Amino acid sequence: MRAKVYVTLKPSVLDPQGKAIQHSVEQLGYGGIEDIRQGKYFEIELDESVKEEDARATAERMAREVLSNPVIEDFRVEVER
Amino acid sequence: MRAKVYVTLKPSVLDPQGKAIQHSVEQLGYGGIEDIRQGKYFEIELDESVKEEDARATAERMAREVLSNPVIEDFRVEVER
Repeated sequence: MRAKVYVTLKPSVLDPQGKAIQHSVEQLGYGGIEDIRQGKYFEIELDESVKEEDARATAERMAREVLSNPVIEDFRVEVER
Repeated sequence: MRAKVYVTLKPSVLDPQGKAIQHSVEQLGYGGIEDIRQGKYFEIELDESVKEEDARATAERMAREVLSNPVIEDFRVEVER
């Protein structure tokens, strides 16, 4: 069973890294870009014996306690077989 | 229109950062974890006037040319209104 965790900066938090990427791609000639924000992505492979609801609970707890900084970041969890 | 780009290390490439995270969460008492891999995640906000197929093409080109290293990384693009 695999859990995917997406961690993004909260919308109110400035993202200088994303702005730098946006500036670079615009210099390279890409148009029509209003904003780029960078986040983190984790793939967590869990034991096959773990039940889906437990996998989700574990992944959410891990995302909240370890993988994200709740002061400035939001996270989203997906679980798949 | 928003494009989401997920960049992950190819399965054959070692991920020491992911291994460090795995080791840390195991020390914190999380069980049943077989593997953790870390990737990157980009949210690209495109001009409303851009058509969906053009948005996808732009995001894929950007992912291939700028956001990922095709030697060691794979990417996946999602486009949503």
